Amino acid sequence: MFELHADLRRDCFAIGTFPLCNFLAMNDANFPWFILVPARHEVREIYQLNETDQLQLLRESSYLAQQLALEFNADKINIAALGNITPQLHIHHIVRYRSDPAWPKPVWGQQPATPYTVTQRAHLLTRLRRCLTRDLVFVLP
Amino acid sequence: MFELHADLRRDCFAIGTFPLCNFLAMNDANFPWFILVPARHEVREIYQLNETDQLQLLRESSYLAQQLALEFNADKINIAALGNITPQLHIHHIVRYRSDPAWPKPVWGQQPATPYTVTQRAHLLTRLRRCLTRDLVFVLP
Repeated sequence: MFELHADLRRDCFAIGTFPLCNFLAMNDANFPWFILVPARHEVREIYQLNETDQLQLLRESSYLAQQLALEFNADKINIAALGNITPQLHIHHIVRYRSDPAWPKPVWGQQPATPYTVTQRAHLLTRLRRCLTRDLVFVLP
Repeated sequence: MFELHADLRRDCFAIGTFPLCNFLAMNDANFPWFILVPARHEVREIYQLNETDQLQLLRESSYLAQQLALEFNADKINIAALGNITPQLHIHHIVRYRSDPAWPKPVWGQQPATPYTVTQRAHLLTRLRRCLTRDLVFVLP
C-alpha cells in the first residue's frame, strides 16, 4: 500500500496526481522545485518499477519538464533521482535560472528553504493550473 | 552532427557506446560515476529527444543502473540530468555508498576529483565488462 514518506509530507505540499505519480511542490520559494513520486509501494530505484510504470514515469516527467520550461521561462531544468536520505523513490524537477541563488550549482544544501507565503503559493498554483492541463488532477482548491 | 562536448572529453574517459548513448566514466576514483550522453546534436533536455530516443535512453539508463547496483553492491544509485554548466545533455549515474566521502549529500562540488591510476582504471574496466554484457560496445581495449 503506497503512502507518501514523512520527509516528503514535511518538506512539500501536494499539488495533484498524475496517472502514476503524486505531484508535489517543495516548500521553498527560492526555486520552482517540484517532485514526482510514483505511487508504488517500497520502490527506491527507477529500475525497480515495472516496464509499464517506467514508461509512464518518463511520460509524466517529460511532459512536466517541458511545460515548466515554457511557463517559467527556465534557463535549464534539473531532473534528479537521488534518495540518499529519503528512501522512497522521488524525482526532482527544478526550474533553474542563471539568476537563482544556487546557480550554477545543484540546489541541494545550498541555502535553507524559504517557505512560500500564502500569496506566493496561490500564485504558483495559478501558474501550474495554466501550464499543466493534461492528465493532472489537482488536489488543491 | 554529434560531437562530445569538450567539458566531458576533459573530465571523463570513454568506455563504450550503447545504441543511443556514449558511455563515459568520470575520471574521479572517489565514486563509481558514469555518464550517458545521447549521441544527438544540440539537445539539452530529455524532453527534446524524440519519443523513440527517450524510450531508448530510459532502457539504457535502467539497464545501466541495475547492473551497476549489482556489480558494485551499491547502497543507492543517483541519477541526474543537470547541465547547468555543460549544456550537452548528459545523465549522471553514480554508485553511492554510506561510506563514500560525500554521503548522504549529492556528489557535485563536495571534493576535488581524484584521477584513476592506470591500475584502478583497468580494474574498473574489468568490472564493467563483467556486468555490462548487453548492447554495449566497448571502445577501450
